[in-house]
Amino acid sequence: MSDKTAATMDKIVNLCKARGIIFPGSEIYGGMGNTWDYGPVGVEIKNNVKRAWWKKFVQESDNSFGVDAAILMNSRVWEASGHTSSFTDPKMDCKECKARFRADNLIENHSKGKVNPDVLSNEEMEAYIAEHKVACPNCGKHNWTPIRTFNLMFETSRGVTDESQNKIYLRPETAQGEFVNFLNVQRTTRAKVPFGIAQIGKAFRNEITPGNFIFRTIEFEQMEHQWFCKEGTDTEFYEEYKKKALEFLLCLGFEREHLRYKDHDKLAHYAKSACDIQYLFPIGWQELNGIHNRTNYDLSRHQEFSGRNMFYLDPVTNEKYIPYVVEYSIGADRLMLAVLCEAYDEETLEGGDTRVVMHFHPAVAAYKAAILPLQKNLSEKAKEVAKQLSKKFMITYDEAGSIGKRYRRQDEIGTPYCITIDFETLDNNTVTVRDRDTMSQIRMDIGELAAFIEKSMEI
Amino acid sequence: MSDKTAATMDKIVNLCKARGIIFPGSEIYGGMGNTWDYGPVGVEIKNNVKRAWWKKFVQESDNSFGVDAAILMNSRVWEASGHTSSFTDPKMDCKECKARFRADNLIENHSKGKVNPDVLSNEEMEAYIAEHKVACPNCGKHNWTPIRTFNLMFETSRGVTDESQNKIYLRPETAQGEFVNFLNVQRTTRAKVPFGIAQIGKAFRNEITPGNFIFRTIEFEQMEHQWFCKEGTDTEFYEEYKKKALEFLLCLGFEREHLRYKDHDKLAHYAKSACDIQYLFPIGWQELNGIHNRTNYDLSRHQEFSGRNMFYLDPVTNEKYIPYVVEYSIGADRLMLAVLCEAYDEETLEGGDTRVVMHFHPAVAAYKAAILPLQKNLSEKAKEVAKQLSKKFMITYDEAGSIGKRYRRQDEIGTPYCITIDFETLDNNTVTVRDRDTMSQIRMDIGELAAFIEKSMEI
Repeated sequence: MSDKTAATMDKIVNLCKARGIIFPGSEIYGGMGNTWDYGPVGVEIKNNVKRAWWKKFVQESDNSFGVDAAILMNSRVWEASGHTSSFTDPKMDCKECKARFRADNLIENHSKGKVNPDVLSNEEMEAYIAEHKVACPNCGKHNWTPIRTFNLMFETSRGVTDESQNKIYLRPETAQGEFVNFLNVQRTTRAKVPFGIAQIGKAFRNEITPGNFIFRTIEFEQMEHQWFCKEGTDTEFYEEYKKKALEFLLCLGFEREHLRYKDHDKLAHYAKSACDIQYLFPIGWQELNGIHNRTNYDLSRHQEFSGRNMFYLDPVTNEKYIPYVVEYSIGADRLMLAVLCEAYDEETLEGGDTRVVMHFHPAVAAYKAAILPLQKNLSEKAKEVAKQLSKKFMITYDEAGSIGKRYRRQDEIGTPYCITIDFETLDNNTVTVRDRDTMSQIRMDIGELAAFIEKSMEI
Repeated sequence: MSDKTAATMDKIVNLCKARGIIFPGSEIYGGMGNTWDYGPVGVEIKNNVKRAWWKKFVQESDNSFGVDAAILMNSRVWEASGHTSSFTDPKMDCKECKARFRADNLIENHSKGKVNPDVLSNEEMEAYIAEHKVACPNCGKHNWTPIRTFNLMFETSRGVTDESQNKIYLRPETAQGEFVNFLNVQRTTRAKVPFGIAQIGKAFRNEITPGNFIFRTIEFEQMEHQWFCKEGTDTEFYEEYKKKALEFLLCLGFEREHLRYKDHDKLAHYAKSACDIQYLFPIGWQELNGIHNRTNYDLSRHQEFSGRNMFYLDPVTNEKYIPYVVEYSIGADRLMLAVLCEAYDEETLEGGDTRVVMHFHPAVAAYKAAILPLQKNLSEKAKEVAKQLSKKFMITYDEAGSIGKRYRRQDEIGTPYCITIDFETLDNNTVTVRDRDTMSQIRMDIGELAAFIEKSMEI
């Protein structure tokens, strides 16, 4: 549907700023690092993406349960998870210009993606950079400090007395919120293994970001599903979640050839298997989501650090074991970017004009329909229709400018249907419904609109 | 509907822990200050509360637009808003036991609410505490330090080099996200004043919390609507939003006599008028939401601090002015607590048994229906019905224990309908639908269930 050569990051960014999708954070103050604010159109799209995910991974999923854990967690959580000791980036400073870079990024860029720095130790990265005389991207010199590691967690302090100040962290991932609630969820739902815990929530990482819009940001929202299962069944479920992850993207309207599986070259020490689904972003193939077989590492660590028994007692076989976890994780912001890129299209029309159109799935589109009175003296009837449909859907209303201009504005924010109120409407209560993608129009009774729109939104 | 004498905070907290509504944050590590994690039932209720709010204040509101701004904002924002200099609590230390308290809380408790410390200066508070010999709640002595003020914002640092560390804050309120995006929203929506900007998002305050469950927490979610209007129309809109705020609560099922307006005794220096809607919590009448006429203070301050022109140019009259703001703000967590308290009831049944039942509005209830096979050999048909309804609604399924016990479990989490699959279902595709509140049952065709449930959810 979309022309992948049309979407560039610049065009997406500019459209987002111009059409109220995404603005730079704190923009009137010159911005704030790599943060972004979702505008009137963007917040609806993002909420729709999150709702679609929740529908597929909680509402329609057997034996899956949601949680919404606090961002501020007990610091012991991050000791158990290993983040306190090893959630670090390998940084090098240019001794000439003082700019700081991630060694792995330097290598990846220098080798044009041919060398995967994830499989290299710090010493091996330093050796590569020395051997290939990798230059500073800022000043062009080759004069580096050794690699130093910096923890990526944002630190803050809880407590209002000087004596009671406790160092705490903004969570760098949401996953631990599911793990620490494993017992609570199992107990209160009386769920039997295998079962899942899902969460959507914000996480924060104090890292050098490459600046690719919302691809990687210091503040971001994760959508995660942890599937707790018995050792021995884990590989089967791992494969199942690889499939489910892909199916979810396809149901949002992604084309299959813009997606691919990519196994990890290097596994975390606790992981049995790990793969990403990559999407063909304008900046190339990049990770969109991950699926990991985490074994029983997470629950075992929390058992060790909390002293709480994380065993599951099978009520049928009486076996006691710490479940394995198959994790499926996708960034809501990154998925939003992929949705934007996938939807973007520039089309040449019959008369030679061009239009920019966002081919969002109607479930994802910010507004399900735009109500357009053909002339201003039809606005009363048009507002009545808008009000009625607003009970069920996000609807927008526009009476400014020619119908053609109004169509273009709706195309640019991806509104699937433009509903025009004309003089015939006053006679027989029918309207024209113009389809965003085909630009064809049909005439429809006002009473049929709600069911028509609802049907289009099914995923 | 609910018996206000039945709900106590302890009962609500215990029900929440037992039924997967709300757990203490990081519980396996002994908790984390006053943080709370929403469980499988609670996350659905909270999301439904947020959706209901968005429906009323964005979707169905003329000329209102949503945003979702970053939690981490440029520090200049908090200079402009005044938080850096004056977002403080007046603290006193007990010299005997070293416990620290808020002076205003000490006075409020000592006077049993008869003295309003909000109207007192620090000196006046110190004088009151000395004169009345207010004792330390911890050790009973009267030996206080003078009042000291502590900023309530959580601080952290952005930047990965030692030289570039910038002090930033976790936002203490969401409102500034709407104000700094005033120009962006106006430009991209081409909205004419008056118009509104709404946001739902997290905020953080490093304060001494009184420990009333989720009434006041260090991490909380706000739902805010800022209405930008012309000076002279502000009082009228202030009254309008007082009404709208109340109507919203009534549509969620609150009884009118559990709510009251309360004008602020002391206004912030920039405010023209301010009032709360209070709810009769088990801990007494407390603020549930606020409505404030903030004049043009916020946009004027941001104009001063950012150097950006915050004027609105009226396209009809050509007048230029900085709009006034009528703010309506409600905490999602606090509203959730009120919803729980309002719904809670203990009923004596005919046979002398009692039941705990949560009378949630169906729009707010976690699960819209529970599917219960009368016997286990009906589970295949029951699961088929559950799967079908799950396409549209959050549905739960339960086949364990007697029907009576299963009803009780659903009553405790407030599921409005229990749908029982019995042997007649196999014959004629009908089921019984048991109403949570009346406990009466009707027989219904499976094909009618979705429309029946949907109708009940209307707000």
